[in-house]
Amino acid sequence: MRLQCTMCGLAGEAGKMVHPCAECGEPLEVRYEPGEIRPDLALTGGGRRCGILTDFAAVLPGLGSTPVSLGEGGTPCLELSNLGSRLGLPELHLKNEGANPTGSFKDRGTAMAISWAAGHGFGRVGTVSSGNMAGSVAAYGARAALPCLVFVPAHLKAEKLFTIGVYGPELLAVDGDYGQLYRDALRLGAERGVYFAVSDDPWRVEGQKTIAYEIVRDLGRAPDYVFVPTSSGGHLAAIIKGFAELVAAGLVERAPHFVGVQATGCSPIARAFARGAAVERFSRVTTAAHAISNPLPPSGNRLLRALSGHGQGAIISVDDEDMVRAQQLLAAGEGVFVQMESAAALAGALLYARDGRLAPTDLVLLIGTGSGLKDPGAFAGQEFGRQQISLDQLATIAVPHSRRTANEDEYPQGM
Amino acid sequence: MRLQCTMCGLAGEAGKMVHPCAECGEPLEVRYEPGEIRPDLALTGGGRRCGILTDFAAVLPGLGSTPVSLGEGGTPCLELSNLGSRLGLPELHLKNEGANPTGSFKDRGTAMAISWAAGHGFGRVGTVSSGNMAGSVAAYGARAALPCLVFVPAHLKAEKLFTIGVYGPELLAVDGDYGQLYRDALRLGAERGVYFAVSDDPWRVEGQKTIAYEIVRDLGRAPDYVFVPTSSGGHLAAIIKGFAELVAAGLVERAPHFVGVQATGCSPIARAFARGAAVERFSRVTTAAHAISNPLPPSGNRLLRALSGHGQGAIISVDDEDMVRAQQLLAAGEGVFVQMESAAALAGALLYARDGRLAPTDLVLLIGTGSGLKDPGAFAGQEFGRQQISLDQLATIAVPHSRRTANEDEYPQGM
Repeated sequence: MRLQCTMCGLAGEAGKMVHPCAECGEPLEVRYEPGEIRPDLALTGGGRRCGILTDFAAVLPGLGSTPVSLGEGGTPCLELSNLGSRLGLPELHLKNEGANPTGSFKDRGTAMAISWAAGHGFGRVGTVSSGNMAGSVAAYGARAALPCLVFVPAHLKAEKLFTIGVYGPELLAVDGDYGQLYRDALRLGAERGVYFAVSDDPWRVEGQKTIAYEIVRDLGRAPDYVFVPTSSGGHLAAIIKGFAELVAAGLVERAPHFVGVQATGCSPIARAFARGAAVERFSRVTTAAHAISNPLPPSGNRLLRALSGHGQGAIISVDDEDMVRAQQLLAAGEGVFVQMESAAALAGALLYARDGRLAPTDLVLLIGTGSGLKDPGAFAGQEFGRQQISLDQLATIAVPHSRRTANEDEYPQGM
Repeated sequence: MRLQCTMCGLAGEAGKMVHPCAECGEPLEVRYEPGEIRPDLALTGGGRRCGILTDFAAVLPGLGSTPVSLGEGGTPCLELSNLGSRLGLPELHLKNEGANPTGSFKDRGTAMAISWAAGHGFGRVGTVSSGNMAGSVAAYGARAALPCLVFVPAHLKAEKLFTIGVYGPELLAVDGDYGQLYRDALRLGAERGVYFAVSDDPWRVEGQKTIAYEIVRDLGRAPDYVFVPTSSGGHLAAIIKGFAELVAAGLVERAPHFVGVQATGCSPIARAFARGAAVERFSRVTTAAHAISNPLPPSGNRLLRALSGHGQGAIISVDDEDMVRAQQLLAAGEGVFVQMESAAALAGALLYARDGRLAPTDLVLLIGTGSGLKDPGAFAGQEFGRQQISLDQLATIAVPHSRRTANEDEYPQGM
């Protein structure tokens, strides 16, 4: 096992290289020697929710210490039969990562990164995040009983603060450019011995890749399409890495089409993908989808390289209204409440369906990256049709014979 | 299989009896003939999160239709080694039911109840709830594509409404006595063909009992103590039923001590337990722990009968401050964020530890009934020590060498 730059190929011993690459600034990743990981064994596991570090030990680096786990992974993989039948997609599924311990996909990567840090002598951990990753690192920092520094943007909404602060981190709201903060935090960490488990940290990526194995366990095969909300690019890069390992081991025939879905109001990777150019800073962010609004995504170019090597996939974007509508469809249509940002996956699949790019035989998987419970402010003041009645009126209420389907007209035409 | 009253013994065919008992008003429960369920098979399962109806089919009634599932159950069972070592309880564990699809333990029972209703010709479902059960039934109603009536108390906090409303139920805020509403809703349901999956519905109880099997799978044996936040009494009654099945099948040697924990400001069952009397309405509710504040719990007396038959167990109460402190201990000490009400389990264990009623060798299990993410309003305005800094100040910040332990002095003396 070694670390290697995903761009320039600079390689070195795991404990000795500092992320990102000292030569070119691009993300490092973990590379294994032949036989060092056993993808075949990772497909036969899958017991109780013992955590990804135990469940997927066969394809992860050794830790050198007790795993730091909150029982992440093992999330439900649901067939969306109500929506699927209305959309003409009988094989539509959703992997509900919101059922992870802190309510988001980040917990897989955090478990791996914090365990690695704790096992390699780091006495302090931290991260830079506007939400899901901050809560996840704060929780695993508490679990590891390590001091934890969380840098959040100064504009973080007050009503989301409790999803981070409750775990007792050192909470620093930093005024200034987010991209600069990311680089400065990593430098601070290297100088002062704080392990910053950022979005494209190599060990985090190893943890995130376990979802690829789990999907194949859940479905019995690789999906034809995987739709993933995309911000920094680290998550999708990890999923591609996991499937690449499965393909290399001959355990799945071919990897899925990967579709990363950004918010149109902050879509630097989608724009670069469309232009066939490198990722540039997105100058004017106009989306409310804060969990996927990194204007200068550190794994953007790495993702474009991975998709280009893989040969099939795309990065697209959807509008905020599409996400909100998709969020409603999932909640009222299937009983799954995801974050607005997570619903970008369904919004992307709806775009593909509308354009005739999905066949009824396609096995389509959406990654529901986070729980809708994490963003209470998004629903402030909404009444959801609540009626006020008295006990006396109970006997006379109208009992409906079918569900209200306010969104019926929102489906792609002809579906 | 038949339904039978837990009090007067009146029995009948499952599809023909209406809950609660027509004779005495007490809860009905499901009774099996010898060999009709197979507890032995239920202990050997435990794969991916396929949902309790598949995972525990061996000990559940047949459904007559496809299960309605969101991947409930299979929740993490965590060793609380940080807290345990500070408390002198090396075998302290927590079952994190907040990792269920809608964020609470209710999903196990709802999956069973709604599946049973859908498989037995009910075209409409509903419930009466102030929170967790309302969200759960609304979600499974959506999953079953059935119209869903949710009666909530008129005083339900606006900021919790989204955890129910997002699933698109018919939402009726009813002004009037909650106990009366419970009875009226069941009558309305019987008259007009709406299946009300209330807290002590016999099929719900069957779903809830699966946690007993899962705990034995997780730990390899039965705990010595199980602490459970207690409101209507249905959940603890279900847990006792599950362990009784395991004992009857010879799969565990003896059932745990069961300790139901109520809020002192609404503790009708604890008061009745202490007095050796029947449950009476709790006239003046003064707790903020709304999820466990049923002043006239429909399964209160049933729970007292079950504990009396079982021979070891108690219903106690803890103050709101104890719950809030226990919630902080779990979040900042172990990285597990539960609802204030769920933290009653730890608060109860702390009381027992303080009184010297727990030995270091005791295997103690807390049931974390719901996710802290469900109650954002509880943290409104809290800053969690957030500091505002600029990027320029980053290099000069103090990096702590140990975690802040504001709660250190809150531990029981001598521990």
